[in-house]
Amino acid sequence: MTDRKPTADLDELTVDLDLAHVFHSWSAQGGGRTPFVLAGGLGSRVWDHSGTTYLDFSSQLVNLNIGHQHPAVVRAIVEQAGLLATVAPATANLTRGQAASRIVARAPDGFHKVFFTNGGADANENAIRLARLHTGRDKILSTYRSYHGNTGAAIVATGDWRRVPNEFARGHAHFFGPYLYRSDFWATTPEQECERALRHLERVIVSEGPSGIAAVLLETIPGTAGVLLPPPGYLPGVRALCDRYGILLILDEVMAGFGRTGSWLALDLYDVVPDLITFAKGVNSGYVPAGGVIIPDSIANDFDTTVFPGGLTYSGHPLAMAAIVAALDAMESEGIVDNAARIGRDVLAPGLAELAERHPIIGEVRGVGVFWALELVADRATREPVGAGVMAKIKAELLARGLLPFIAENRIHVVPPCVVTDAEAAEALSIYDEVLSLL
Amino acid sequence: MTDRKPTADLDELTVDLDLAHVFHSWSAQGGGRTPFVLAGGLGSRVWDHSGTTYLDFSSQLVNLNIGHQHPAVVRAIVEQAGLLATVAPATANLTRGQAASRIVARAPDGFHKVFFTNGGADANENAIRLARLHTGRDKILSTYRSYHGNTGAAIVATGDWRRVPNEFARGHAHFFGPYLYRSDFWATTPEQECERALRHLERVIVSEGPSGIAAVLLETIPGTAGVLLPPPGYLPGVRALCDRYGILLILDEVMAGFGRTGSWLALDLYDVVPDLITFAKGVNSGYVPAGGVIIPDSIANDFDTTVFPGGLTYSGHPLAMAAIVAALDAMESEGIVDNAARIGRDVLAPGLAELAERHPIIGEVRGVGVFWALELVADRATREPVGAGVMAKIKAELLARGLLPFIAENRIHVVPPCVVTDAEAAEALSIYDEVLSLL
Ligand SMILES: Cc1ncc(COP(=O)(O)O)c(C=O)c1O
Ligand SMILES: Cc1ncc(COP(=O)(O)O)c(C=O)c1O
Repeated sequence: MTDRKPTADLDELTVDLDLAHVFHSWSAQGGGRTPFVLAGGLGSRVWDHSGTTYLDFSSQLVNLNIGHQHPAVVRAIVEQAGLLATVAPATANLTRGQAASRIVARAPDGFHKVFFTNGGADANENAIRLARLHTGRDKILSTYRSYHGNTGAAIVATGDWRRVPNEFARGHAHFFGPYLYRSDFWATTPEQECERALRHLERVIVSEGPSGIAAVLLETIPGTAGVLLPPPGYLPGVRALCDRYGILLILDEVMAGFGRTGSWLALDLYDVVPDLITFAKGVNSGYVPAGGVIIPDSIANDFDTTVFPGGLTYSGHPLAMAAIVAALDAMESEGIVDNAARIGRDVLAPGLAELAERHPIIGEVRGVGVFWALELVADRATREPVGAGVMAKIKAELLARGLLPFIAENRIHVVPPCVVTDAEAAEALSIYDEVLSLL
Repeated sequence: MTDRKPTADLDELTVDLDLAHVFHSWSAQGGGRTPFVLAGGLGSRVWDHSGTTYLDFSSQLVNLNIGHQHPAVVRAIVEQAGLLATVAPATANLTRGQAASRIVARAPDGFHKVFFTNGGADANENAIRLARLHTGRDKILSTYRSYHGNTGAAIVATGDWRRVPNEFARGHAHFFGPYLYRSDFWATTPEQECERALRHLERVIVSEGPSGIAAVLLETIPGTAGVLLPPPGYLPGVRALCDRYGILLILDEVMAGFGRTGSWLALDLYDVVPDLITFAKGVNSGYVPAGGVIIPDSIANDFDTTVFPGGLTYSGHPLAMAAIVAALDAMESEGIVDNAARIGRDVLAPGLAELAERHPIIGEVRGVGVFWALELVADRATREPVGAGVMAKIKAELLARGLLPFIAENRIHVVPPCVVTDAEAAEALSIYDEVLSLL
């Protein structure tokens, strides 16, 4: 195609078409918007049509675990596109079965079935549905510091500001999760934060009426909210509370799952087995839209003779499935999950800690694998978040130095692909360092 | 890949993996299920690994408007997969802008922006959100005979049985649409059905409280519910009611849009301009999951400086966009929409009418383009629907003769790809004829 030449004209055309015709997620659409053009990528790098290149430390929306344009995943998509691009969900398709079997192989014992969706929101929708039907109860509890997706129930399960204009689902209640740096429980140690967060959750359960609660829905590690690693005993403690009150535990692994934390699932880092697991993003790095719910026999069997009242046209879409098979196989054979763990342990952990020593604006460094947040504060003592102006400047300066960052509120999320190399991580650390030195 | 050889073994493997690991939409999952394997296709035909071939008169889930494996669409996916398979929605991407501009070119005047989603359900979720934010009102009215998707608000907007176990969204009310063959208004002519359906809708609007109603959400032609073509004055009448009460009209073109009716949008057949249009399926025939909302300036402008509170990771996914561009271009250059119109008018209309003459089990034939339903009745006088046993036999006999049907309740939906040829349509008509003769 002639309109694929790497020229500045194509960047201009892209901007013009974008401003004229594309309505964007979670944004104001008007005048001030300056679209950021991306046209290609490879591994941890992306570029526009003019060839300006960026080190992608956002993994786009923290979905690109395997990096840009992994040849095996591209090849699998191309191959499946040549065979059968689309097929109805009611049929049986080999690639779909292969994808499902690879996913359940990464789940705890007893999880043998996968219900496929198009993304994370509808994965959570269907997990919520399964929990309600399994328990015969209605309420879903989730934390205020969470994001679970943009559709009817998922957005009301979401705790953050995005819920507020969208509160049209019933049966949801929210609680506070552990976050020692900004404790909602006046705690000063991880042990205290954990114990108090569990005590708070039990108070909410009892107050909401345990016999009406279908599930507690939690991101294993809340991601968009700030990479909030739970203290060690928290998830087992939630599991115990759920068991005590006959409530299901749904773990949302949409952002944390499939390599991001340096383990296959984030729940592998904690001593916990949930009742349902939702996934999307990392399962195929978003090369083709996909998500889903991993379902244990104990719940799947409810629907052996009863119709499951949920579905969607593209459940188990062949191209998405081909991308899952190839991505999970490549992650295994190329040691990509181990790379994420190693980079986290040996490069990012010490490198970010050093940044924090040099820059008082860094209030806290948190993370594991390739899933980190730098919490920026105006004052280390009061922990007052830096303002939007400072964050905008940081973003612009990082971009100017060729680093595509992930910025959320007063935080820089350091979330490169799991394939990031030592050299790329070192390069990014020095760019962060340089930019923080400007402030 | 060695596991791609066309052998019966692969069909067996597919069935085994499916039974073991795939949890299916809207189905019981258990023992009795016999998975139907599909491995490849071309145009209006599909086949399994052993080479058993079917004439696809289902278009899978009525999404395959351009037919299986259209070379231009496959090529576009392959090409985009080689450049950039995934990109964050906040960025600007050329293929996305090109897709949006081609879509708005098919919409009425004043519609210039597209918000992209992964499918039909989240398209409706976001149209509902836009309507609520634009009007400052909450309620959404939709018909009982409708399907709008499986997520939180979409499933409660849905009128059919699938809503009932999922009723966790507030702000929805339902009314009866026109359906002369089984009139809810004791009507005997199309004019009477139209007039009474409008009178009924106004009674519901007034009774629900007009000042609280954000939108009326309608499938332009209700599809899954039975290809219920509205009588000529109905949609303009709904438009007038909406205008009278300051209510938005959302037309769901997910199944009816992009060629199915022999016109670009189904609304082109009726004298009506809605306030929002939702689409999915036919826009790229489901080669890559995609859907969206077409938004007029009058609503898009609300979000020039205000943040639109909705979004999803795969909004405007590059592979989906490439498939849209190629599909819409091919439909244009190859006259595929015209073909659908011609086949409907010259082959299916007379052919299905002839079937109805020969088979008293056919109570009514309805449709346009490649969007038809045969309503099967035990008794033409009482119009009593035939039972599930008869429909199961019909399905089995059609499959045995190499036709993949779309069966819904007591109906056969005759919904081939828009590229279906005269010979294929004739072949299908004779298979239907033969099977109906068995009863
Ligand atoms: C934890 C979590 N759950 C769910 C979602 C929603 O996923 P999607 O955008 O694919 O609907 C996200 C998206 O960022 C997420 O981070
Ligand atoms: C009219 C209509 N709207 C919405 C949907 C939901 O689309 P999806 O299954 O892609 O979510 C469908 C699916 O059949 C439909 O026919």
